[in-house]
Amino acid sequence: MRKNTVKEKWRRGEPTVGTWLNLGSPLSAEMLAHAGFDWLTVDQEHYAIDLGMLQSIFQAISTTDTIPMVRLAWNDPILIKRSLDAGAYGLVVPMINSREDAIRAVQASRYPPQGFRSMGGGRKALYAGADYPEHANEEIAVIVQIEHIDAVRNVDDILTVEGVDAFFIGPNDLAASMGLPIGLDNPHPDHMAAVAKVLEAGKRHGVPAGIHTGSGQEVLRRIEEGFQFIAISGDSGFMTRAAQDALAVVAKARAAASREVI
Amino acid sequence: MRKNTVKEKWRRGEPTVGTWLNLGSPLSAEMLAHAGFDWLTVDQEHYAIDLGMLQSIFQAISTTDTIPMVRLAWNDPILIKRSLDAGAYGLVVPMINSREDAIRAVQASRYPPQGFRSMGGGRKALYAGADYPEHANEEIAVIVQIEHIDAVRNVDDILTVEGVDAFFIGPNDLAASMGLPIGLDNPHPDHMAAVAKVLEAGKRHGVPAGIHTGSGQEVLRRIEEGFQFIAISGDSGFMTRAAQDALAVVAKARAAASREVI
Amino acid sequence: MRKNTVKEKWRRGEPTVGTWLNLGSPLSAEMLAHAGFDWLTVDQEHYAIDLGMLQSIFQAISTTDTIPMVRLAWNDPILIKRSLDAGAYGLVVPMINSREDAIRAVQASRYPPQGFRSMGGGRKALYAGADYPEHANEEIAVIVQIEHIDAVRNVDDILTVEGVDAFFIGPNDLAASMGLPIGLDNPHPDHMAAVAKVLEAGKRHGVPAGIHTGSGQEVLRRIEEGFQFIAISGDSGFMTRAAQDALAVVAKARAAASREVI
Amino acid sequence: MRKNTVKEKWRRGEPTVGTWLNLGSPLSAEMLAHAGFDWLTVDQEHYAIDLGMLQSIFQAISTTDTIPMVRLAWNDPILIKRSLDAGAYGLVVPMINSREDAIRAVQASRYPPQGFRSMGGGRKALYAGADYPEHANEEIAVIVQIEHIDAVRNVDDILTVEGVDAFFIGPNDLAASMGLPIGLDNPHPDHMAAVAKVLEAGKRHGVPAGIHTGSGQEVLRRIEEGFQFIAISGDSGFMTRAAQDALAVVAKARAAASREVI
Amino acid sequence: MRKNTVKEKWRRGEPTVGTWLNLGSPLSAEMLAHAGFDWLTVDQEHYAIDLGMLQSIFQAISTTDTIPMVRLAWNDPILIKRSLDAGAYGLVVPMINSREDAIRAVQASRYPPQGFRSMGGGRKALYAGADYPEHANEEIAVIVQIEHIDAVRNVDDILTVEGVDAFFIGPNDLAASMGLPIGLDNPHPDHMAAVAKVLEAGKRHGVPAGIHTGSGQEVLRRIEEGFQFIAISGDSGFMTRAAQDALAVVAKARAAASREVI
Amino acid sequence: MRKNTVKEKWRRGEPTVGTWLNLGSPLSAEMLAHAGFDWLTVDQEHYAIDLGMLQSIFQAISTTDTIPMVRLAWNDPILIKRSLDAGAYGLVVPMINSREDAIRAVQASRYPPQGFRSMGGGRKALYAGADYPEHANEEIAVIVQIEHIDAVRNVDDILTVEGVDAFFIGPNDLAASMGLPIGLDNPHPDHMAAVAKVLEAGKRHGVPAGIHTGSGQEVLRRIEEGFQFIAISGDSGFMTRAAQDALAVVAKARAAASREVI
Repeated sequence: MRKNTVKEKWRRGEPTVGTWLNLGSPLSAEMLAHAGFDWLTVDQEHYAIDLGMLQSIFQAISTTDTIPMVRLAWNDPILIKRSLDAGAYGLVVPMINSREDAIRAVQASRYPPQGFRSMGGGRKALYAGADYPEHANEEIAVIVQIEHIDAVRNVDDILTVEGVDAFFIGPNDLAASMGLPIGLDNPHPDHMAAVAKVLEAGKRHGVPAGIHTGSGQEVLRRIEEGFQFIAISGDSGFMTRAAQDALAVVAKARAAASREVI
Repeated sequence: MRKNTVKEKWRRGEPTVGTWLNLGSPLSAEMLAHAGFDWLTVDQEHYAIDLGMLQSIFQAISTTDTIPMVRLAWNDPILIKRSLDAGAYGLVVPMINSREDAIRAVQASRYPPQGFRSMGGGRKALYAGADYPEHANEEIAVIVQIEHIDAVRNVDDILTVEGVDAFFIGPNDLAASMGLPIGLDNPHPDHMAAVAKVLEAGKRHGVPAGIHTGSGQEVLRRIEEGFQFIAISGDSGFMTRAAQDALAVVAKARAAASREVI
Repeated sequence: MRKNTVKEKWRRGEPTVGTWLNLGSPLSAEMLAHAGFDWLTVDQEHYAIDLGMLQSIFQAISTTDTIPMVRLAWNDPILIKRSLDAGAYGLVVPMINSREDAIRAVQASRYPPQGFRSMGGGRKALYAGADYPEHANEEIAVIVQIEHIDAVRNVDDILTVEGVDAFFIGPNDLAASMGLPIGLDNPHPDHMAAVAKVLEAGKRHGVPAGIHTGSGQEVLRRIEEGFQFIAISGDSGFMTRAAQDALAVVAKARAAASREVI
Repeated sequence: MRKNTVKEKWRRGEPTVGTWLNLGSPLSAEMLAHAGFDWLTVDQEHYAIDLGMLQSIFQAISTTDTIPMVRLAWNDPILIKRSLDAGAYGLVVPMINSREDAIRAVQASRYPPQGFRSMGGGRKALYAGADYPEHANEEIAVIVQIEHIDAVRNVDDILTVEGVDAFFIGPNDLAASMGLPIGLDNPHPDHMAAVAKVLEAGKRHGVPAGIHTGSGQEVLRRIEEGFQFIAISGDSGFMTRAAQDALAVVAKARAAASREVI
Repeated sequence: MRKNTVKEKWRRGEPTVGTWLNLGSPLSAEMLAHAGFDWLTVDQEHYAIDLGMLQSIFQAISTTDTIPMVRLAWNDPILIKRSLDAGAYGLVVPMINSREDAIRAVQASRYPPQGFRSMGGGRKALYAGADYPEHANEEIAVIVQIEHIDAVRNVDDILTVEGVDAFFIGPNDLAASMGLPIGLDNPHPDHMAAVAKVLEAGKRHGVPAGIHTGSGQEVLRRIEEGFQFIAISGDSGFMTRAAQDALAVVAKARAAASREVI
Repeated sequence: MRKNTVKEKWRRGEPTVGTWLNLGSPLSAEMLAHAGFDWLTVDQEHYAIDLGMLQSIFQAISTTDTIPMVRLAWNDPILIKRSLDAGAYGLVVPMINSREDAIRAVQASRYPPQGFRSMGGGRKALYAGADYPEHANEEIAVIVQIEHIDAVRNVDDILTVEGVDAFFIGPNDLAASMGLPIGLDNPHPDHMAAVAKVLEAGKRHGVPAGIHTGSGQEVLRRIEEGFQFIAISGDSGFMTRAAQDALAVVAKARAAASREVI
């Protein structure tokens, strides 16, 4: 079976850097797969990407060695089964707030006896190899989203579940669950304390931590802090911000010019 | 009929700034339509975008006031008719090398008696209004690509065709047709002379000039030079370069760090 | 944030008129969005319309001021989250039979602290504006389907849930749940009594009532009766009935002619 | 090979009634295929319907005995070959203005020795039967559009081409080519004279005449006039007009009510 | 309502033979629908086939008398409702392990009073006829998958549920649930005993048995054993194995030739 | 630039074996790309596969080292440009009947100065590498179809065109052009003489010959005869024949059994 190089890097203590695919475009996926990311995660939670399109995007990513992942819409066994069969090598699972939630996600993604995933066909063996059934339980990465104050309270219970390979902090949903204002780098002391508690638990239990960032500089800071599953922006974010920046240069210069004229 | 604000700006001597849509994604089109460009041009010449997808992208752009355009695969009456019926307000037509080429493009895009475009249904009136047939001949913009040394030779013949609303220089194809090395800002004196001749003709005949650029700074320079139809990058270009830049920041810092360790 | 004009009309005591989109066609959606309806509801309950197509249809509707809505396949938080992120401004939720059902639908469609909807990206802010997170809880309309005898029994419990913005009567499912024959304008006294009870509760609690109709005349009657969320036919219904009517005119005349010949 | 029942009716001197498919929706196609039309014609000339979608629509029509046809974007051998291979039983070919145009359309749609259509696979034999190659030349209907004053002048040359099975009058393009105002039932005497000349030629040469109509009543009139290929409205036309009529009933009554109040 | 010929054959004690559709291709579905199978089952459990595509495939199958079925992703009322509305005449439901599971599947697929399926529109009546609501409860086939050791234990409870029309053995998931190695024709005595118990229960309760096979020979054996719902391979399996066989012939001969040369 | 391994094998005098992709399914393409063919050719001539789908299929093939090719609908510069930009490494061009036809196909597929292909973006460099523009003229394979008696007459003129990399015999169209009955292995002496003449010319000019076959055995025979571009069946052909064979085994046995019973 094809190796999950992201898990290999995690085991060696190395960071991995990827980005989010929101556009539902196999062509942009193929472009970013060639850009040098360790992994690409298709966001089905907040973007209107159906299963057939997920598979098309996975095919596009599979033209390279970049590892294909998906953020599921929910911690749901049907979604887990179907996206794994389409070729996902990593699952980012929203709203894991308890040990039971984590166990459910892990078991849905593993064949018996470790779990209850259904044997059967699909595209996966094309990508992974004919011996997929024997090795899938080790190669598939399950990444739980810690994004609710309940999850913070239960973080030790969650991270000690066998099969939780990494966790990903969702700062906005976490802030919302705490009744705090939202924002990417949330400065509220309660929020910072919650995140610190989660990170400390991750280190204690040896579970790689993940976070979203907005720039290369921020990635570097997160690497120094020990994060190993680091997302920069997303296909739509890269595109939109670059376009806005270019237009801003034009608008600013023209505004200045028009002032001079006056 | 909805006004073609790009043509209005041209008539007032103002520049317009847009970008290229290569991804074939209605969602990225809608995002960039909200970014503030004057126009968006779907590139059917070099990207695998079918007519149905062109229409979906036009629908996405039509959620805003940004003007929808298409670069056709060829100077072909079928393509012209069908993309106009889908709602194109501007046509960028490749390889206009002679007066005959220009006349063919213009006539295919105009209803009789100015041309031979077929009357009939389609999506266009939804976007433009029920009085589309009466005003389409004035509102639709025909932009000819000057991208061959033959076109340079015939530039006066081409730009004086009634209905040629603007021209767009294709530096790479032009260089290739001259047996020169390609490149966006081609420094070869023969290439520069050819471009200068075309620009000079554009000014003489009062036809707005267009060009592709890679950054906001370059746009400013082109505006100063008098260009009025200026493309910055493209959806795929914005995305890919921003992703590569972010990854380069990370790679450089990590390479430096690894040298320090040694 | 863009205003939900349907909710505004409801607050002013005015009726709103819309139709159902069953065809899964962005082009027919755009055509009907231009026809003058207050809202259009995509029917995912009974028609094979996936999430990606839902988004395409929402884009088509967003070329106008018509409010985009969806009838969900089920009262399911995943479906609610994903369709709202795609840009739905109204949700018609099937089979709300109890206070718990209604609370679940409302909470899934609201951000904390009113609900548990996940913060995050998606297409929605393109349609609604960048301040979507602050105002979405007020602007999104939740319309519960009262279509089971249990719902009739619990109607006061349901309609007094904070966040239930309107209700929609499903006469056929209601009849089926009562063991009665089905039909749009069900004359069975038990059915009429059930509907009367629901309408009376709606008036008592100030919650706008909705119903499906088959013609403009029927809409007028429903407006007089105080309904505020009135559907006429649907894209497929308009088309099919008009086609059948036209063919019937032809068939009848030809049958008459053929009798005369004899 | 499955019989082309439309050609059979023409040979028996009977009229056939169909409609236009503009929406690019296999579901609306299937609905109208069940409505009782003799044929359905997918309009690729003015609507953004690609070849793959054409095939999907043909599959939907093939669930019934209704005959599947296509109006091509142009008199083009590539389009003819590909749409026939996808299962078209009838071709409506635009802008047949001369004998040469007609011969080209016929030959592109016939296997040697009558034409130069390429042998080979495709979906067609699924619909038509394994003996398709032997009988296709007889069963496929070629319908030429007479829609230019040149075609009127050459009408005898056109209609006497072996293999022209019917003709279809395009009143708007015809009017435009004559420098006249457009309109479905064009009352201009020059236009009426041109149409009369074409119809007279059709009768003289025994070639069935076709026309577009807007209602069942108009179909009856055209049948009486001897037309045999009569289109009523279209999927989008049926839908849009029915929706507008229903909304007009509501608007009119409400306007009256609001006047009464005053 | 169109008859479910598969259920008719079951009632007459006859076997039915079908295959699995994995490719998500309406064209391959139409091809196999013409090949002579009694039924075709679209596999949504392990293949990335969305609802819209399911409907397109059902349209393709509906060009013939072959009965369209679906293997659902899960025993889920939403999936059942939506696939039935799209035109499914048979449902293969995974992981029916208890009487409660079976009752839930049956009730979700039946209109009241036998179940809780929602009345309403969709494509189904196009395929089945306008009297669908009256007869659907009898014509729709519910086939439960027996694929877990719990299901074997509860087999009498499951097969005696009114409305369970047939069962289908899933040997791999069954083996996995028993901690045994997987394989199509599992020789392990515990597995054989489990299967024997299930088959015996099927005969006792008069419920047709189903199984997957890899060849025509194996089908014959299963018919002799009394199976009545027998799948051969699948669209992807037929294609891939035939391609591999052809390539193996070439490779073998060339290897032999190259040895001879030496 | 990624090497075209098919051209490398041709240069070494080795045969290559591939198959035809007719289904328009990226999943079946990916399956066959893993089966071990040297190349896969998407058939746009006879199957309803649009450009966007062609690109999706190329992405699926690009997950392996199998070389992606396309059979174009026609010898048309637009189709050539667009399919190359989507990533085609080989073009099978129909109806090359003269030296002019061959030159047109070659020049449309080559950058200046060897041809007139337009420089520019597209997906191609993702597949081939950033140095695509420098090497494309050598790596792209142009395969002309010899399928008309005119082509046989002009075969020396055609095969000596610089840039014609191979030829492919189309026996059915050839037979049709000669007024002969069609059939894969055409035994008519005139047909055999024509094919012999073409093959002899191919050998004389050192241009690899191609042909379609129906089985591995036939491939072996063609390899012995010196063919180097050999197609076996197609995705649809493999699937359909295997399904029919399996059903025939069942039908035959059951017919025999039913006779025995009598």
